Amino acid sequence: MDITFSHRNLLGIEGLRVDEIRSILTAAKAFREISRREIKKVPTLRGKTIINLFFEPSTRTRTSFELAAKRLSADAVNISSSTSSVTKGETLLDTARNLQAMHPNLIILRHSRAGAPHFLAKHIDAPIINAGDGAHEHPTQALLDLFTMEETLRDVKGKTIGIVGDIKHSRVARSNILLLSKMGARVTICGPPTLIPRRIEAMGVTVATDLDAILPSLDIIMMLRIQLERQERGLFPSLDEYARFYGLNRQRLNTCKENILVMHPGPVNRGVELAPDVADGGHSVILDQVENGLALRMALLYILCRGKHHDS
Amino acid sequence: MDITFSHRNLLGIEGLRVDEIRSILTAAKAFREISRREIKKVPTLRGKTIINLFFEPSTRTRTSFELAAKRLSADAVNISSSTSSVTKGETLLDTARNLQAMHPNLIILRHSRAGAPHFLAKHIDAPIINAGDGAHEHPTQALLDLFTMEETLRDVKGKTIGIVGDIKHSRVARSNILLLSKMGARVTICGPPTLIPRRIEAMGVTVATDLDAILPSLDIIMMLRIQLERQERGLFPSLDEYARFYGLNRQRLNTCKENILVMHPGPVNRGVELAPDVADGGHSVILDQVENGLALRMALLYILCRGKHHDS
Amino acid sequence: MDITFSHRNLLGIEGLRVDEIRSILTAAKAFREISRREIKKVPTLRGKTIINLFFEPSTRTRTSFELAAKRLSADAVNISSSTSSVTKGETLLDTARNLQAMHPNLIILRHSRAGAPHFLAKHIDAPIINAGDGAHEHPTQALLDLFTMEETLRDVKGKTIGIVGDIKHSRVARSNILLLSKMGARVTICGPPTLIPRRIEAMGVTVATDLDAILPSLDIIMMLRIQLERQERGLFPSLDEYARFYGLNRQRLNTCKENILVMHPGPVNRGVELAPDVADGGHSVILDQVENGLALRMALLYILCRGKHHDS
Repeated sequence: MDITFSHRNLLGIEGLRVDEIRSILTAAKAFREISRREIKKVPTLRGKTIINLFFEPSTRTRTSFELAAKRLSADAVNISSSTSSVTKGETLLDTARNLQAMHPNLIILRHSRAGAPHFLAKHIDAPIINAGDGAHEHPTQALLDLFTMEETLRDVKGKTIGIVGDIKHSRVARSNILLLSKMGARVTICGPPTLIPRRIEAMGVTVATDLDAILPSLDIIMMLRIQLERQERGLFPSLDEYARFYGLNRQRLNTCKENILVMHPGPVNRGVELAPDVADGGHSVILDQVENGLALRMALLYILCRGKHHDS
Repeated sequence: MDITFSHRNLLGIEGLRVDEIRSILTAAKAFREISRREIKKVPTLRGKTIINLFFEPSTRTRTSFELAAKRLSADAVNISSSTSSVTKGETLLDTARNLQAMHPNLIILRHSRAGAPHFLAKHIDAPIINAGDGAHEHPTQALLDLFTMEETLRDVKGKTIGIVGDIKHSRVARSNILLLSKMGARVTICGPPTLIPRRIEAMGVTVATDLDAILPSLDIIMMLRIQLERQERGLFPSLDEYARFYGLNRQRLNTCKENILVMHPGPVNRGVELAPDVADGGHSVILDQVENGLALRMALLYILCRGKHHDS
Repeated sequence: MDITFSHRNLLGIEGLRVDEIRSILTAAKAFREISRREIKKVPTLRGKTIINLFFEPSTRTRTSFELAAKRLSADAVNISSSTSSVTKGETLLDTARNLQAMHPNLIILRHSRAGAPHFLAKHIDAPIINAGDGAHEHPTQALLDLFTMEETLRDVKGKTIGIVGDIKHSRVARSNILLLSKMGARVTICGPPTLIPRRIEAMGVTVATDLDAILPSLDIIMMLRIQLERQERGLFPSLDEYARFYGLNRQRLNTCKENILVMHPGPVNRGVELAPDVADGGHSVILDQVENGLALRMALLYILCRGKHHDS
């Protein structure tokens, strides 16, 4: 496979070139076939060690990376820690240096602190994949989202994509805005004013607070998961209220373009940001996102474990 | 291996035919040899993905299934969740659909809600093994128990088997009653009246509350684990009291048939339902149950991953 | 590989002969090369089952053993339990007997109770590696420490090694004292009087309470991790106070021999027992300890899984 990718790590969408992104997507498409076979395994990464280092719980993302590693015949080791026991950067660094001394070929890091993977990447040799750092970036999610969009629409260039919900605390939104803008799409974000970051327009997005007003213009709508704890902090009045203004239901879907794609990074709060019949309906590509996510991660493990990198 | 088994899933003992049960046991006997070899591994399920999805903690059963998968060269992934985070059927379904999108070959489910595996089986493609659903069924436990009985007694037909303890809350008891009746054995259940379900006679069992009275008639006695929390709810007065009336000790064993088999699904409360010297004595086949359980699970993984099923 | 090792288990340093220790170290050196290769995996233990049975949490040691098993192609299964649920010896024994019935080739046990691995070894067939038992022994840590020392100094015979900190509660200290004395080194222990066990001189060590007084005599200094909970029990006044009297900083390092080695079993309390610049400085071999630990464990898994043992 001919891969264009000149980085040691995948820390974020920032810094990736368009041809590199295209290269990842092409590889992902090839790797997706493996999971559809009778024998879902290739010897590509036999004898490589891949560490899932998760300081925040995440069954889905961890499982996706673990299966990606195993289907490439790598040895996968899971390490989960409550963030409470690792509060200082020195301790995170010590943990990583210790792992480094065991000669892993790649470390996948999820951490509640923005910048944690970048910090690690400066200090250790093994390539790092950022599997989510605080409210900063979640680049594999954005890449799998783009992969899913382009599998249906061919090219996102010129398309209009709405991202709806808690933009302020969402690394998924942030990585998607960076990626989709880079690929030539128009991004409209929409949510309660309390959940929209100030000066977000500087990222090149259009900002809306009225969901109904933007629906007819969208080719793709990405609904974000609302976190119950935001409500407790008074950022929105109630889940019912939230659903009434920002939930995507059948009635609202009827005002959208005929071929609109409905996406969600999961897990869905059914009946809150997404009505069950919409989540399970013909426009939803939520489960494609999951399948594509595994393929995309196989592609990234392959690319970063090859050992030919130029800068970080 | 010539297997007679026409189901996509193993959800319970109900619905299995006698020839299918015999077929599983024959396969289990063949697979048991693998774990006794120097090299305890065959390539049978190489490239298959098996997910242990446990919503209740269980080191033993999870380990048994995990080893079964690994000795068949399958890739095993463990997912544990506290039930608290997954209380609604929709959420369980979403979890399973997400897993399904990663193309597993089989999902092993343990869940505190009766019927959870049946619900899943209706909605997803991967075969499901019920590893315990509430107080409903635990079919692999019953099958390994039968396997163990027949390894010693040849055939349970016409034999009398006592199941002693908390019948009311026990999925082990329920699956065993269904299975043993189907195989032509006579089942006598025995326990405190508060722990015997009403109308249990409809399942074809004899009901007793006086353990001493039934002991001489039994070919096999299966002691159930008493759960401390039942006492807290006032269902029996104390562990001492329980042991006095329903514990199997040496003195009681002496009133049994000479070749009686003593069984327990584990883990044993030593000194409560089973005296230590009886648990470790010559009549006990408790550790055979464990060895046979692993073999039985290898057989089931093999049968259900072959991909030839007819109905569910 | 020609191995001199006549035990079924590795329960402690006590009972090992010098030629056996040399044999383990020679094997470890050979196995270390595997982790430095492109393909970090050999088929040596294919089809063997290795169980990590950890009743105390330990990410580092568990990961080291898990990677050791995987790089030798063994199947590794992790079992973690809070000690709270397993308080009685009978229960530990039942757990182990159940595992034994699944035909593991080796069980690695960490337990809060001194003697737990010895107890198990008497009752089950699978070889046991003690991965730490209470304040008693942690033999693989001592062996990897010795391996690390000898990689730099050739031979510890005649060298003076200081072990500094909470000697009283440290299984690392205890195993190292036994091992280093056996190999002909001189051991000086040093710490607050409240953290030095009575009659420790009987083990052949020199006891000191003034760190500054002993520094110039040491060839190697091993700093132990101080546990915060010891302070809560009043065994030392404060972390600051502890660091002032027993922490190794740059100033103190300057009073040491020019080629002194600085060791620590990890994880380091930076700024307490070890100043950050000393932990990361040119005298520190802390990360070599980690790399060597994995190699040493590969060697032990290989030696104990061969199946040729004479006594226990």
